[in-house]
Amino acid sequence: MLTIPPGAFTVRQPIRFSDSDPAGIVFFPAFFRMFADLFESWMNDCLRVPFADEFLKHGHMFPLVHTEVDFKAARAMGETMDLTLLLTDLGRSSIKYTIVGHDAGLVCLEGRFVVSVASKETRRSMPIPDYIRRPMEGYLEACRGARG
Amino acid sequence: MLTIPPGAFTVRQPIRFSDSDPAGIVFFPAFFRMFADLFESWMNDCLRVPFADEFLKHGHMFPLVHTEVDFKAARAMGETMDLTLLLTDLGRSSIKYTIVGHDAGLVCLEGRFVVSVASKETRRSMPIPDYIRRPMEGYLEACRGARG
Amino acid sequence: MLTIPPGAFTVRQPIRFSDSDPAGIVFFPAFFRMFADLFESWMNDCLRVPFADEFLKHGHMFPLVHTEVDFKAARAMGETMDLTLLLTDLGRSSIKYTIVGHDAGLVCLEGRFVVSVASKETRRSMPIPDYIRRPMEGYLEACRGARG
Amino acid sequence: MLTIPPGAFTVRQPIRFSDSDPAGIVFFPAFFRMFADLFESWMNDCLRVPFADEFLKHGHMFPLVHTEVDFKAARAMGETMDLTLLLTDLGRSSIKYTIVGHDAGLVCLEGRFVVSVASKETRRSMPIPDYIRRPMEGYLEACRGARG
Repeated sequence: MLTIPPGAFTVRQPIRFSDSDPAGIVFFPAFFRMFADLFESWMNDCLRVPFADEFLKHGHMFPLVHTEVDFKAARAMGETMDLTLLLTDLGRSSIKYTIVGHDAGLVCLEGRFVVSVASKETRRSMPIPDYIRRPMEGYLEACRGARG
Repeated sequence: MLTIPPGAFTVRQPIRFSDSDPAGIVFFPAFFRMFADLFESWMNDCLRVPFADEFLKHGHMFPLVHTEVDFKAARAMGETMDLTLLLTDLGRSSIKYTIVGHDAGLVCLEGRFVVSVASKETRRSMPIPDYIRRPMEGYLEACRGARG
Repeated sequence: MLTIPPGAFTVRQPIRFSDSDPAGIVFFPAFFRMFADLFESWMNDCLRVPFADEFLKHGHMFPLVHTEVDFKAARAMGETMDLTLLLTDLGRSSIKYTIVGHDAGLVCLEGRFVVSVASKETRRSMPIPDYIRRPMEGYLEACRGARG
Repeated sequence: MLTIPPGAFTVRQPIRFSDSDPAGIVFFPAFFRMFADLFESWMNDCLRVPFADEFLKHGHMFPLVHTEVDFKAARAMGETMDLTLLLTDLGRSSIKYTIVGHDAGLVCLEGRFVVSVASKETRRSMPIPDYIRRPMEGYLEACRGARG
């Protein structure tokens, strides 16, 4: 059974013609675009850390290091899906999160992601800056509390 | 000077990391994806003709026959742009419209499009069905009135 | 150390401007598009099972059920990468394979995939048809032999 | 009737599942991605000006200023299409070209494009550098000669 913590960051994702393959269902690379967009929205709208500024002003990148995703139910154009991002762990420079795609209690997909914080200049990983870590820790607490 | 008719259909388009090229500005194929999504949203939200049903239930397609676009100002990630769709003409089976991309009075792009209504089965153009033509004629009137 | 079996199916993948994000490196959803294209090329060019016919004539789909990918080294535009598809297991209706992205012995990424064969009509999984299973078994043998 | 000059730069474009929309034909934004890739290939393989170096080493960008395209015949997955790039004019900083998509004499699409050369640093247009102009002038001659 799906339990989404109260306070979890969720966006309602429309499934568009442009996301759909010849079978009329989401083409899997389009899901990964949605995942990238969700991470950006989460930074912008939940953490209040403007994502574009990270790259353009601060020279920070967030490369994907690892992902694993289970696709459980197809989504067709004209449908919607809620995408929830749950933070699961913070390392020195790594951010671990889960994305759950769900619709009316049905889990359509579940993915685990590890992203690293890296410097655009050195192309190497770096400690998560404090002004990012702080709101992330708050959100991690919210995600954990909801599970305990 | 940009004059957008009152009642024109406009969506606020965020410019995302996923839209951006190595220069940090929108990669032009991403603009065309936005144009496709805008047409779909216009059908759904302005005409109240569910776009996915057209394809899935009624077997109607809306292939692009002609487009011409002037790109006047780049858009960078983190910015937004308003996209307005203005209907300019309806033929027997063709739909002509203009898309204006603008931000605070600055016109970023302006494009003209001709789309045909076609049968999924025969792959040939067909008359615009009445239940689609009617709301389109209403919207055409709104667009024309605003100009006269 | 990377050992690619002789007879493994490999394509040379150019990294294009259109694959690249604002950091000039491959945007991860673009990798997943490459993975989808590689599976299609493998069916066409290695198994000699025309992929488009599967969908259009035989009504077979190959939905992705599970994937996990480790991204080990970024790829920048102007570079190339060899993508090798290795079959690892065949079930009744499931196909398991690994994709290794490598360049001059450097492993850039390694992913594991589970794809199901499904009927376009019923949207349910179905046994792998014999004319597909046979060349897949041959290729599985080639991949296994090389490891033993 | 289609006349492609001898010496014209042409690539054979496979139509893939990943290019296709729910009707099984190329989704128009995917055509624009092909156009972007063709320009890059033309620079790399015909002019021998490495495209990635332009951006990464020389700080040159090639933003699209204007495009108009007629789509004349749909292309379905499993088919191929030849894409030919013909240079039509060179200005101080602008490059005009036509792309013709054709298959066995059938013209599928024809597009006209205006691209500007711009500095990544100033974000302003700049004269076409000599080492780019020279091979472009040679190719322009080849395209013109074939027409006269």
